[in-house]
Order: sequence, then C-alpha cells, then structure tokens
Amino acid sequence: MIRDAERTRRRLLEAATAEFAELGIAGARVNRIAEVAGCNKAMLYAYYGSKDQLFDAVFTTHVGDFLDRVRFDAADLPGYAGRLFDYFEANPAAQRLAVWYRLERPTSSRLDAVVEVNRVRLDELARAQSDGLLPAHYTPAALLALVQSISTAWSSMNPEYDLVAPPDVERRRAAVVDAVRRLTA
Amino acid sequence: MIRDAERTRRRLLEAATAEFAELGIAGARVNRIAEVAGCNKAMLYAYYGSKDQLFDAVFTTHVGDFLDRVRFDAADLPGYAGRLFDYFEANPAAQRLAVWYRLERPTSSRLDAVVEVNRVRLDELARAQSDGLLPAHYTPAALLALVQSISTAWSSMNPEYDLVAPPDVERRRAAVVDAVRRLTA
Repeated sequence: MIRDAERTRRRLLEAATAEFAELGIAGARVNRIAEVAGCNKAMLYAYYGSKDQLFDAVFTTHVGDFLDRVRFDAADLPGYAGRLFDYFEANPAAQRLAVWYRLERPTSSRLDAVVEVNRVRLDELARAQSDGLLPAHYTPAALLALVQSISTAWSSMNPEYDLVAPPDVERRRAAVVDAVRRLTA
Repeated sequence: MIRDAERTRRRLLEAATAEFAELGIAGARVNRIAEVAGCNKAMLYAYYGSKDQLFDAVFTTHVGDFLDRVRFDAADLPGYAGRLFDYFEANPAAQRLAVWYRLERPTSSRLDAVVEVNRVRLDELARAQSDGLLPAHYTPAALLALVQSISTAWSSMNPEYDLVAPPDVERRRAAVVDAVRRLTA
C-alpha cells in the first residue's frame, strides 16, 4: 500500500511536470494531470492539496534535481557555466518551469529550496573571492546573475532567432564557457 | 469618425498590453481588455480579428517602440547594453511580453518585425567585425545572444534572488556595461 501511494505520487509529479512546463500554472489543468497519471482528481488533491501546491512540489523537485546534477564550483565558473548549459539543453522542461515560476507564481510566498540555493551559491562565491580563487571585480550577486544568464542565453532568445542563426550546440556551448572565462579572468 | 476609430484602436492596444503582460496569451481575457478599453468585444474583433492577432499587434508595436528607443551600435556594444538595460528597467511590461511571446506563441508563424530585427542586427554586427570595429572571436549570432542575455540578466533571476541580493540598479547597470566591455575587448 505504501509503495502504491509512492508510485501514485511519482506519477502525479511526472504528469504535472509535463503539464506545467507546457502550459504554465494558469494554463495547467488538474483534470488532465490526474488523467495522465491514471488517477482521479480527489487523489491529486489528497496528495498535493491544490494546483498551486502541486506546482511548488514540482518546482522543489526540479530544484533538487538541478542541485544533484549540476555541480557548482565557485573556483571554476566557466566549467560550471558549461554544465549549466548542458543541463538546460538536455532539460528544456526545466528551463520552461523556471520561467513560468518567475512569471506566474505569487511573490508573496517564497520557496525555501530556491532561497537556500541562492544563499549557498552567494556564500561560495564570496568565499572563493576572499580565498583569491576568483577575481573580485563583480559582487557575488552580479556573478551569479551574469553566469546564469550567459549559460541560458540561447534559450532566452526569440523563436525567430534560430531562423537567422541556426542552432549549433557545440559552438554555443564554447561561446558560453569562453564568455564566462573572459568575465572571470 | 476616423479619429474616433484611431482612438479606440489605441485604447484597445493599451488595455491589451497591460492584460497580456500580466497574464500571457492563454491567461488574457478579451472581455476584460474590451471593458478596460471602454468598448465591446465585437469592436475588438472587428479591429483586431482574434486574441492571437491582438497579441501579435501588441508585440509588433512593442518591437517598433523598442527599435525607436534603443539605438543599436555594433561598434559600441557596451553602450548598447546599457541602453537595453535601461529600457527593460523602465518597461518591465516589455520584458514580460517578450517572455510570454517565447513561451506561448506558436512557432509555426513567424512575426515579420522580429525576423527583421534579428536580421538587421546580425548584418550590422558582421559589418562592424569586417570593418575591424568589433573583435571577431564570437560570431554575430553569439554576440547578439550574449549581449541580450547579459543586459536582461537580473530580470531573468528568480524572485527569491532579490531577498539575498537586494536590487541596486546603478551597480547592476555598471556590471552589465562592464561585462559586455570584457566580452568585446
């Protein structure tokens, strides 16, 4: 029974990830998520409370997955930028979830997992700077924003961009790593 | 009569800009747009055809406005990056519209205004490179993506980021200009 419950929760989470990534919070339909997960709406609410809480569960899981897979190294930001680029290339849903999160989620309640990631990253950057492993011409906060935006530069371009600049993943990755190298030289 | 029609169109466009920026294409309600604009839904459809076509009209207007206000200079990308930063700081709705555009608009039909901006920018970057006014270690396509993502770095951070890194617009702008300077040195 416990294993069944576990399986249902996981199936709901997977279905919700796909639905939220595609349509966002407002656009997602709880009925469709339950149907894809092979259970009913009452079970979804029993397990996750509400559509908003389900989104938070999806996003928290995604943040955990991201932390597991993308090793942060304040002393080697070009390497980190390359891994970040690879992660979002391999997981376009993760990138879309992050954008919906920013656009749609009420800012009144913060998500602990996200607050924590920011704090840990900034601490590590500050430590690397004071240990002399990282130049200090940018604040840790600026470095975090710059590295993150550069690593996801192409996924934030308009769709028409690919018409005039056809995707070349290797070349894009090289430019990301090189750009972060120049910023932290 | 012609001036009345012009005024109604403009009011509809303004109301639609606010509604789309806030809620996106799927979330926007045509009823609400018509109400805010002080006209009825039939007039909205008569002038703009459909919700999707109204969004395209809003976005095309926004692209035109952007081109008028943010002078591009391939030979001075740090200066351009600063102006881009200023524009999005002053126009958060423009930034949100661009994100909804990317997330929600079907990629099957391209928007001519956007195709054209990309093409003109890439041509100018290529020319500046061949004239020796801009280093050629990045392709024009890479430069465009890097400069754009750096200039909008902070507006693409998660909302929790501001908790640990309180906004300091002057400092952020300086980091943007400096980062683009380092990339194009």
